[in-house]
Amino acid sequence: MNVRERLGANVRRLREAAGYSQEAFGHMADIHRTYVSDVERGRRNPTIDVVEKFASALKVRTGSLLDTPAELDAGKQVDG
Amino acid sequence: MNVRERLGANVRRLREAAGYSQEAFGHMADIHRTYVSDVERGRRNPTIDVVEKFASALKVRTGSLLDTPAELDAGKQVDG
Repeated sequence: MNVRERLGANVRRLREAAGYSQEAFGHMADIHRTYVSDVERGRRNPTIDVVEKFASALKVRTGSLLDTPAELDAGKQVDG
Repeated sequence: MNVRERLGANVRRLREAAGYSQEAFGHMADIHRTYVSDVERGRRNPTIDVVEKFASALKVRTGSLLDTPAELDAGKQVDG
């Protein structure tokens, strides 16, 4: 998986685990619903500022969204 | 520290620890020396593809470059 696919898989898994629709999540993170959908499919190359917005809305460390999905569970905490 | 500052601090620390000048490192990572300098100062908002290039050249997990610097040592491994 490349970094775009890892981000997408992580965002989708965490968003669904939190029970948010793409639309509700986009509203929370101040990101358009179609952009959320594109990111989840690994079709976008967002900047780190945008990754930080996703991480804040999902309440995880920013870097954890770029890790391989299996590594994510070990590192659930917000950056200081 | 915001995500740009964390990236900058991590890149600088790891690059210096590896003994590379900004110029030599930029050559390795295929990134212009002045871009490396700007990233290290927290003045850039690179895309995740660029963060992946930095991580590959530094041989660390991509996400670890966005974590708070103290967290970095625990996670030194390359993404699968």
